Amino acid sequence: MELKQMVGIEAAKYVKDGMVVGLGTGSTAKFMVDEIGRRIKEEGLSIVGVTTSKNTEKQALALGIPLKSIDEVEVVDLTIDGADEISRDFQGIKGGGAALLFEKIVATYSKECIWIVDESKMVEKLGAFALPVEVMPYGSQQLYRLFEKKGFAPSFRKNENGDTLTTDGGHYIIDLHLEVIEDPRALGTYLDQLVGVVEHGLFLDMVNKVIVGHEEGPETLNSPHNPSLPH
Amino acid sequence: MELKQMVGIEAAKYVKDGMVVGLGTGSTAKFMVDEIGRRIKEEGLSIVGVTTSKNTEKQALALGIPLKSIDEVEVVDLTIDGADEISRDFQGIKGGGAALLFEKIVATYSKECIWIVDESKMVEKLGAFALPVEVMPYGSQQLYRLFEKKGFAPSFRKNENGDTLTTDGGHYIIDLHLEVIEDPRALGTYLDQLVGVVEHGLFLDMVNKVIVGHEEGPETLNSPHNPSLPH
Repeated sequence: MELKQMVGIEAAKYVKDGMVVGLGTGSTAKFMVDEIGRRIKEEGLSIVGVTTSKNTEKQALALGIPLKSIDEVEVVDLTIDGADEISRDFQGIKGGGAALLFEKIVATYSKECIWIVDESKMVEKLGAFALPVEVMPYGSQQLYRLFEKKGFAPSFRKNENGDTLTTDGGHYIIDLHLEVIEDPRALGTYLDQLVGVVEHGLFLDMVNKVIVGHEEGPETLNSPHNPSLPH
Repeated sequence: MELKQMVGIEAAKYVKDGMVVGLGTGSTAKFMVDEIGRRIKEEGLSIVGVTTSKNTEKQALALGIPLKSIDEVEVVDLTIDGADEISRDFQGIKGGGAALLFEKIVATYSKECIWIVDESKMVEKLGAFALPVEVMPYGSQQLYRLFEKKGFAPSFRKNENGDTLTTDGGHYIIDLHLEVIEDPRALGTYLDQLVGVVEHGLFLDMVNKVIVGHEEGPETLNSPHNPSLPH
């Protein structure tokens, strides 16, 4: 079994009857959504899903998973999603699939988050994976030049046709090739206050549990973070 | 002469040949744009305008003002814009016209900013004017409930048909009815880090000069702020 599939199936075990479940986006989350669909069909599991992208919405609808938008639920009980890189201290980079904004919105209103990854995503420090920054198209060249000046080695995300990619939210993504991020918290705060930056792919203090896929089987790690709902 | 027209004409005097000029949005800025159009036609003034909304773009094109986007210029020499409220310490609330995001993007890349207002906009402390917060539609109900819990008395901005207004950037606006903002900086930082908030109407440390319209004539106030380009 593929490692991504292994952790997708493992994570779906945490889903219980009656839950509101945040459904992540990407190649690993896809297996988890498939498994929840299977449990609904074969085991009569009853949940409501909250999706994080148009792609996941399409997949969930095809599987017959009942869906609500994040605005139609009071809170999400559990969100399961992939990650592009997870550091030793359980901080993450997400957004390789360009869904970081909706993923972060759903994760923000979740009581609990599980990330599922194959072992290649576990790193000492973040930064080898390019950090996605979702930006307003108007002014994006100005931000690009600012990032260049700061030595962030930016590049605009392209779609399969080679055009600048537009996210589900109607924005662009600038990827920052940082190699190593020594202080993710400081970088996150810096990006938050920049005008024109809508969101960034640093997911800090947001995960409760990480399930890592190894050849020998899934490994479940408990994060020291205790994410709280916004206040 | 209307006070708004008086300050619009006064501010246009600061526009010099060869400048890249940020053109604000709203009923006061409209007079300034008209006056720049007149100077181009009658005095042969040569400038490039950078607009802050689709409305201003339409007006400027009709007046024959050459335009570039914020991404086609290196920097803006001077931005002239209205404001909805200016405090004794030269902090501002903008966004009554729903153009705060593009206005803030243009102001951010401007070497100098002038705000033009009639005297009714000058206040001791900010907050009597509702503070606009531009938010992602997805998750906006969650933010609304959060603002309610915090006692921010939120309301969604409506358009003339009574539907939720969509900004030029494709977002919603939640107006916060705060009455008085004791610490604009703390509030700005809080809003900046909220997931789903794209931008807010607090324009802090951003203005060099304020031109106030009185019955007796325009009054020009120099702000203590020395705005710097993003770094």
